Amino acid sequence: MREDFPRSVAKELDAADPLAHLRDRFVIGDDDLVYLDGNSLGRLPAATPAHLDRLVRQGWGEQLVRSWPTWIEWGHRLGDRLAAHALGARPGEVVVSDSTSVNLYKLAAAALDAAGDRRTVLVDAEEFPSDRYVLQGLAEARRLTLRMLPSDLDQGLRLDDLSAALTDDVALVVLSAVAYRSGALQDLAAVNAAARRVGAVVLWDLSHAVGAVPLALSATGADLAVGCTYKYLNAGPGAPAFLYVRREWQARLRQPIQGWFGQRDQFVMGADYEPAPGLDRFLVGTPPILALAPLDPALDVLAEAGIDRVRAKGRRLGEMIVELTDAWLTPYGFRVASPRDPDRRGSHVSLYHPEALRISRALATDGRVVGDYRTPDRLRLGAAPLYTRYVDVWDALRRLRDLAERRGWEGAPGAPSRVT
Amino acid sequence: MREDFPRSVAKELDAADPLAHLRDRFVIGDDDLVYLDGNSLGRLPAATPAHLDRLVRQGWGEQLVRSWPTWIEWGHRLGDRLAAHALGARPGEVVVSDSTSVNLYKLAAAALDAAGDRRTVLVDAEEFPSDRYVLQGLAEARRLTLRMLPSDLDQGLRLDDLSAALTDDVALVVLSAVAYRSGALQDLAAVNAAARRVGAVVLWDLSHAVGAVPLALSATGADLAVGCTYKYLNAGPGAPAFLYVRREWQARLRQPIQGWFGQRDQFVMGADYEPAPGLDRFLVGTPPILALAPLDPALDVLAEAGIDRVRAKGRRLGEMIVELTDAWLTPYGFRVASPRDPDRRGSHVSLYHPEALRISRALATDGRVVGDYRTPDRLRLGAAPLYTRYVDVWDALRRLRDLAERRGWEGAPGAPSRVT
Repeated sequence: MREDFPRSVAKELDAADPLAHLRDRFVIGDDDLVYLDGNSLGRLPAATPAHLDRLVRQGWGEQLVRSWPTWIEWGHRLGDRLAAHALGARPGEVVVSDSTSVNLYKLAAAALDAAGDRRTVLVDAEEFPSDRYVLQGLAEARRLTLRMLPSDLDQGLRLDDLSAALTDDVALVVLSAVAYRSGALQDLAAVNAAARRVGAVVLWDLSHAVGAVPLALSATGADLAVGCTYKYLNAGPGAPAFLYVRREWQARLRQPIQGWFGQRDQFVMGADYEPAPGLDRFLVGTPPILALAPLDPALDVLAEAGIDRVRAKGRRLGEMIVELTDAWLTPYGFRVASPRDPDRRGSHVSLYHPEALRISRALATDGRVVGDYRTPDRLRLGAAPLYTRYVDVWDALRRLRDLAERRGWEGAPGAPSRVT
Repeated sequence: MREDFPRSVAKELDAADPLAHLRDRFVIGDDDLVYLDGNSLGRLPAATPAHLDRLVRQGWGEQLVRSWPTWIEWGHRLGDRLAAHALGARPGEVVVSDSTSVNLYKLAAAALDAAGDRRTVLVDAEEFPSDRYVLQGLAEARRLTLRMLPSDLDQGLRLDDLSAALTDDVALVVLSAVAYRSGALQDLAAVNAAARRVGAVVLWDLSHAVGAVPLALSATGADLAVGCTYKYLNAGPGAPAFLYVRREWQARLRQPIQGWFGQRDQFVMGADYEPAPGLDRFLVGTPPILALAPLDPALDVLAEAGIDRVRAKGRRLGEMIVELTDAWLTPYGFRVASPRDPDRRGSHVSLYHPEALRISRALATDGRVVGDYRTPDRLRLGAAPLYTRYVDVWDALRRLRDLAERRGWEGAPGAPSRVT
């Protein structure tokens, strides 16, 4: 057993970490618990409970319906904040609304309706299941061809394989910027350019990238995107998702769920639906205000950190997971199941092990390290840079090694987890 | 001016009100403000802030992702509570999810896909705009005929007019149980029976009825319904909506937004979408937990009151609005613009006045009475029985009379309100 990475090295990295002080902006509580699942549900920002309580007591309780003129702007206001601090998009290009899957449905349907005679949709065969299912439904209803592009479970979809599939018949490509299982990070500019060369449009799922990796949607020529706010953005369980539509596309697209929030003059309540001129046309119904609110204090922390510093720390945390896995866990049948190049990886690392499900459970209960399991045999470790210390990663991998030494997972249950 | 309804009569009614004590279960704060807009946004239950704070600090902050096995059941658990306390439906027939408009889209699309060769959709021309717009989109995409049934702005759609339009070509009828503007209450059993005779299905919008009027969805033979939870149900601004699908219909219908929450084995994350066997197939994405949570304390109050007692009080409050309008406001150009028969009316009453928009604003600012305006010339007064006193209604109408006497609305602005 190599011991060339003592805990003191991790402590030194924490001491030099320019983001270290931001851990106090989150509710940590149990300091012995190592939480490496911020890629599934981000931690609670310390400012959020009071922020939400004020909204509930004053905004709802006292102001009542008179708060709506303020609330009705929140989807846009929060969208613009996301655009500025996390997405590299322009004002009026991002709105917070509905769930990621509903947004994907709306934008994919709109893009397909605008695609003329093109009849092929491409998706990574390892794309997040909900995305694939939504596209299956759309393709069946429109009698289109949905092509699943084979991609490596560890390395993600290769640009060459995508390019080879990009024919003149392709209407739409759906792809995650960071793959939910492997953490593989795509080159957005290259993918957008390749699609554009054949007249196809790319709809990005940014759920596992946003808040962890700088996204330059404008600069990389992205046209459409969706993503969630409850992972690295820390907006709370099931917080509403966002959607992005490049300004130049907005008037050309029309989505299928024609709710009153997408109507040109919403409160005139006229006879006929006419889509609002800009981004509003992608909205549907009344937004869940209490679930939107926590995005504000969450974005305050991200804005203070700066997404570039978040990314820099996320890279180093990921490299540490890789290095310690190689050093400590290989003898026990683990293997890094993510790209090894940090430029090709988001902020989580997957480890292969045939007993990954039992291991993830035993690690949580016995080891007090919360990561998560993904089919078929992946243990997913996400090091959210805003609150994860280098010693946390060190401790997590050490506890995993301890567990491996005694095969401490053998009594753990083996049914699939229910974690979103 | 008649003075045969002195305030003391209202006070006596409050003293005898079996629900009077429930006002303390809500945050009232400013006791001088008369809130008659619970039909738009219900008041804050007193138990809700602490309930939500506990969820945020413990469920999210401490338990983190480990709370999901509990949260993932909330849509169903809350749906079953709604079914029992407000909807007269069976367990497993109601789920809380998405917005009302998204749910309407899902169920309408599913019903249309199951309707074979039938090519006509019927909707009340005065149906809530979002419902009409959603149906317009579906009808256009499927090249169906959407027939708007003319109905009286004050009295709602007449059953005879609906029956005359029910041909063998009708696939779907969409109708509000209580009309959003007039408050007209439909006879659900009669409408369901009339539709069934020609093989059509009715999709009810229960938004303005639920929590105010007992809904016996099972007993009245209802097949499909949607509705919101933020009006008489008091679950907070934009709280997620519900959908109801009669058990016998569930396996026959398949909705178009194929998200992972509708997949048979969600966490197996397999290659192909296969709809879940029951109600789950109508779900899409990850639900906004913080926006779902307030429905629990809100339903606690409703359950204690009992929907029948809520309805009995709502009728009497409505009768008082009608009686005082007739007595005090007719000379100033007001007219009751709702059904006069309380059996044909929900819990809000609309008043016609050509200056309704300015009046609603002046009444709120000068009179400290919050009602709301609906196009083209309606002042809508909703007396939510759980927290509205008879003296509140008396005071509101008296202040409205005072305003009318001095035409106190003449300086108020005249642009449409932004209130959902």
